[in-house]
Amino acid sequence: MARYNVRDCWMVEELRKEREASQLDIEEITNFISGNEVLTARRREIYERVLSDPEFARDDRYFHSREEAFDEAARKAVHKIKLLKEMDIASQVDKYYFRGAVDEELPTQLNETMFIPTIESQGTEEQKKKWLEPAREYRIMGAYAQTELGHGTYLRGLETTATYRPETEEFVIHSPTQTSIKWWPGGLGHSSTHAVVPARLVTLGKDHGMHLFIVQLRSLEDHTPLPGINVGDIGPKFGYFGMDNGYLQLDNVRIPRDHMLMKYAQVAPDGTYSKPPTDKITYGTMVQVRTGLVLFTAHALARALVIGVRYSVVRRQGEIEPGAGEVQVMDYQTQQFKLLPLLASAYALSSTGVAMMMMFIQGSNLSVRGQIEEGNLDLLPELHATSAGLKAISAEISNNGIEVCRMACGGHGYSQASGLPHLYVNYVPANTYEGENTVLFLQTARYLNKLYSSGQPMSALPTNVCYLATDYPGHASCGVRSVNRLSDPHLQLEAFRQRARRMVGVASSAYQRALGRGLTQPQAWNSTTVDWTVAAKVFTFSVIYFITKNQKFVWLTVTTVVLKSFNDAIEAKGLSPANDVIMRKLCSLYAMYWMVQSSGEFMTDGYMTPYHISLARSLLYSLLAEVRKEAVPLVDAFDVPDEILNSALGRYDGDVYTHLYQWAQRAPRNKKKVRTGVHDVYHKYFKKLLKPKL
Amino acid sequence: MARYNVRDCWMVEELRKEREASQLDIEEITNFISGNEVLTARRREIYERVLSDPEFARDDRYFHSREEAFDEAARKAVHKIKLLKEMDIASQVDKYYFRGAVDEELPTQLNETMFIPTIESQGTEEQKKKWLEPAREYRIMGAYAQTELGHGTYLRGLETTATYRPETEEFVIHSPTQTSIKWWPGGLGHSSTHAVVPARLVTLGKDHGMHLFIVQLRSLEDHTPLPGINVGDIGPKFGYFGMDNGYLQLDNVRIPRDHMLMKYAQVAPDGTYSKPPTDKITYGTMVQVRTGLVLFTAHALARALVIGVRYSVVRRQGEIEPGAGEVQVMDYQTQQFKLLPLLASAYALSSTGVAMMMMFIQGSNLSVRGQIEEGNLDLLPELHATSAGLKAISAEISNNGIEVCRMACGGHGYSQASGLPHLYVNYVPANTYEGENTVLFLQTARYLNKLYSSGQPMSALPTNVCYLATDYPGHASCGVRSVNRLSDPHLQLEAFRQRARRMVGVASSAYQRALGRGLTQPQAWNSTTVDWTVAAKVFTFSVIYFITKNQKFVWLTVTTVVLKSFNDAIEAKGLSPANDVIMRKLCSLYAMYWMVQSSGEFMTDGYMTPYHISLARSLLYSLLAEVRKEAVPLVDAFDVPDEILNSALGRYDGDVYTHLYQWAQRAPRNKKKVRTGVHDVYHKYFKKLLKPKL
Repeated sequence: MARYNVRDCWMVEELRKEREASQLDIEEITNFISGNEVLTARRREIYERVLSDPEFARDDRYFHSREEAFDEAARKAVHKIKLLKEMDIASQVDKYYFRGAVDEELPTQLNETMFIPTIESQGTEEQKKKWLEPAREYRIMGAYAQTELGHGTYLRGLETTATYRPETEEFVIHSPTQTSIKWWPGGLGHSSTHAVVPARLVTLGKDHGMHLFIVQLRSLEDHTPLPGINVGDIGPKFGYFGMDNGYLQLDNVRIPRDHMLMKYAQVAPDGTYSKPPTDKITYGTMVQVRTGLVLFTAHALARALVIGVRYSVVRRQGEIEPGAGEVQVMDYQTQQFKLLPLLASAYALSSTGVAMMMMFIQGSNLSVRGQIEEGNLDLLPELHATSAGLKAISAEISNNGIEVCRMACGGHGYSQASGLPHLYVNYVPANTYEGENTVLFLQTARYLNKLYSSGQPMSALPTNVCYLATDYPGHASCGVRSVNRLSDPHLQLEAFRQRARRMVGVASSAYQRALGRGLTQPQAWNSTTVDWTVAAKVFTFSVIYFITKNQKFVWLTVTTVVLKSFNDAIEAKGLSPANDVIMRKLCSLYAMYWMVQSSGEFMTDGYMTPYHISLARSLLYSLLAEVRKEAVPLVDAFDVPDEILNSALGRYDGDVYTHLYQWAQRAPRNKKKVRTGVHDVYHKYFKKLLKPKL
Repeated sequence: MARYNVRDCWMVEELRKEREASQLDIEEITNFISGNEVLTARRREIYERVLSDPEFARDDRYFHSREEAFDEAARKAVHKIKLLKEMDIASQVDKYYFRGAVDEELPTQLNETMFIPTIESQGTEEQKKKWLEPAREYRIMGAYAQTELGHGTYLRGLETTATYRPETEEFVIHSPTQTSIKWWPGGLGHSSTHAVVPARLVTLGKDHGMHLFIVQLRSLEDHTPLPGINVGDIGPKFGYFGMDNGYLQLDNVRIPRDHMLMKYAQVAPDGTYSKPPTDKITYGTMVQVRTGLVLFTAHALARALVIGVRYSVVRRQGEIEPGAGEVQVMDYQTQQFKLLPLLASAYALSSTGVAMMMMFIQGSNLSVRGQIEEGNLDLLPELHATSAGLKAISAEISNNGIEVCRMACGGHGYSQASGLPHLYVNYVPANTYEGENTVLFLQTARYLNKLYSSGQPMSALPTNVCYLATDYPGHASCGVRSVNRLSDPHLQLEAFRQRARRMVGVASSAYQRALGRGLTQPQAWNSTTVDWTVAAKVFTFSVIYFITKNQKFVWLTVTTVVLKSFNDAIEAKGLSPANDVIMRKLCSLYAMYWMVQSSGEFMTDGYMTPYHISLARSLLYSLLAEVRKEAVPLVDAFDVPDEILNSALGRYDGDVYTHLYQWAQRAPRNKKKVRTGVHDVYHKYFKKLLKPKL
């Protein structure tokens, strides 16, 4: 991995000019995005190691068929496991960086991200002793087989049964129907030897709902499926070519009693069932996974922007002034409008993501995980609600944004050489997995509804939702009379909050009216869920704005409650003046873009008027022109090596056309022409047409 | 292709109930969508023939690698050519249906859609005599090689040169730079023997800009590239696996003088250049292609909706009333909100598309093409501007909509078995080709700017833009006080027009202010293009609404000017009462959805207020609940056969899970396990991990 230096590195003139004209301290911004310089250094160290290893090469990735990709992924998976051990990588953060460097979904990863953690959190001490070491040593390899062909999000709908037989002290695990076949789990198809299988526990004739069971799927001798196990791949997907998402049909498979994970619920040898004390404890992991996704998807958007912005600066097309020569596409206002609000959003989301990651870093003085593990569950409702909305917003903005970047690259964006199609298909499932976005927004909405209808005063509410209090000082109008005044971040935050308060109010009134019409609570809720989704979104937007505005990794919702001395504990390093100015502009751009996009919501209660929106539009357009000047350094600061971008359009040196051409030369479809220049299809088909007499 | 009958056909209960409860006359709606019953019958006849032909089978499409797909496409291409001849298919409409039935981009199609038509419209009589017959008989096969590696939309930027040498009466065609390599043309890589090559004509030392030349690329003996020709495939793309989009580098290739297409511009043997009289004549084809794309993309959206709606009715997930059992996903308001406004939009866009197609059908009494060919060019500015915006809106809504449908299918939407990933990647290029959407919106905007600033009265303006006239009777407020009143289509149209008038006004004022600040016209234009894009979009939305509201294939913009007796000539057949009611609801749903989505624009001048928007929201939600009841029949009416849907989720019979399972069994990744159940990756890689001692 080359560390680039503007002075020493060859690059096209278009990029050199942009970089040389900038006053920004890019390294400082990179550290700002990473969290701090220690994290930047650690990330670079891990990237360096992985990217210099030929086993992890990805140059030909876009040429691979799905089957070749699976072979590649299996090879890389085994190599990764070896290297992780060699490098002694164990922390969550290091693993996150390593995964980012490998940049491929691997068939073994569920062993690490789901199988082992589930046993850790749900297994008894004996179970941990029995299973964890073999799994960590990869003498067994586990999947997590929850989703069924006919059942996903709604866990209580799962059909797979685990029926206890006291006479043999065994569970009989069974797929009673077609819809109960396990479907989708990663690594299940051809890789895993074991799986944690959620199934309905039935003992002594009673159904106790979903519990977790460890089932061996394949022989450890020769990997053949065991009797009663019908397992395979679910077939090609949009992306994830290297992953064997699988199916699993269980035909009365018997497992010993101690293969049920029994840390909380237990079945005694005689079949007696004892209940778990609480199920809240599992929320912690879920929240952590969702918060991780904020950063994960924000990084994907950042990658797309590196490609989109650099290419838009290199690409020249059309004239603005007739006869003055073709201009860089980035100089068109419409192109700025496509890319730069996304750039601001990527900064906002990654600030938010880092703030959340910090909460879960072991040993961090922000560690919420620690609080939860110590039994402090007071935070969970808020944290759960907020992380749900943030995951959904982040996935939605990032995935839509990748496609906007791709199309902003015109025709070449459609080529796999751009790197963008591959990026899109591999990140877009984040809209659906770990909680489908709409389902998550509605989780956030339930929390908002509860707070709003509770009639509590500000003093009783967390900072981030204080505006839902009955005594929140509302203003009839924002009172802004100039573009300049609208740049004030306090005023922007207030506008976002007023809008959130109002949209929660709209949803709440609709809900109350529906109840008044005699609907049951669930019916009334369902008939107002579109409004509630809006409420959850605008609440989440205001949370992101708040974090971004403060330009520190402030997670104030939580911090004001938990960590009283938070502001003393972490004093965000101040940025140098030029960096500070551009960060404020990005923050304002984020605010103005989303304000103009949803102007109707800001006008709902007259707090803003069409006049104010016209000011917002003016500010937005002047910010586009200003941020455009620093667009290249701002994407450089994301610090994504060329090897990871893997894009002819997004290269640091901007040598786009040479690399589009060279890449095409290596395409499989051109290989057959090396000697004669004639592809098989001529001999097989076209010859009949073109030379019909032969 | 089976013609389905609700009574005779096995289907899941969920779908049967929906269909049996409906009072709609589906066949009538199908005819409404097709244009009329004659067109429906003809489409079915052609579909029947193609779908019953095993050569056109597509069952295994989603398993194919790109290289297999190319082989398949070449095979189908040759078979298609044979069948078109056998069936004597020649009309544009028949070809459109045939292409729809084959449903695959074929490497030969550019010969038919670009090479031959270009020679027809740009060649002299002798040139037509020489080239057309061989091309029609496929003894030669042509591509259209315009786009270059560094140049797309901006044709004046093309670099390829054609330098005339009087001494040998030849042109020397040359790629002088890397960026001038032709890049992207379909069928160019390995299929075509010839190409029309746009190049800068240089004669007697003077550059006359872009002209068209016929260049032979490959030997007709053995298909090898001719000397000076470097040709190949540009490498894998997001979709279009079966198409050999190619590159072409020309190294001083000599062609005879008469290979320049000389219908308009000529080069005499001595090198003297004579100018074409007008270039407007070529606009007709461009407009026709764009209007065709409205229907093309609307049909793609319709397909996605057939899949999304049927699956949402079959799929059950979660409970609304606790304990009342899992509900159909379609019963969630949020799911209705995702799919049904798109359904309304698909109806609106396909009405618009059919209206436009009718204009170009040879022999139709609406034939605009005839008018243009007879030299009546008065229509062109309006038609050009409107078709540009319509193509862009239609592509944008449809492609975004396909992804919304895909994600509305949850996890299973990500499987290729859903049919949606394939649909998306093959239609999304419509956002970019035939005029990138933003470029097209700005063409529409230039027309609007011209009209708006011309200060003309209503009597001088076409109906669809009458509201831009100085004397258009504006109202301060829509004056609506009930949901019921807001259902009035006249009032809805007026709201759409007021919004369009206002947003054109916003853009125009911004432009004038920019001029006032001393910017040149081009700079002022560029600095207001985001506003102009909005103006073009809202104008186009109002055109679509107008056509949809009238529920006849009325293209009033044009018709009021051209065809005075239009309303007598085509009296749209009235719909039966139940159909009429649902069509009005769809129209209203289209209006309310887009009104709520862009409520800020409707409020810009106070014509609507937050109160009115709250009424619109109420109407929108009640329409969702009403249209939901007819959602299945409304997608059935799109009349898309199962073979074309090629989707386990979208099947007419709703037997989703059986077919997801059966499809997966045929996946290449499962083939290797037929005997042992163990995939190669175990032996190659995982064995080392799992059994390290061996």
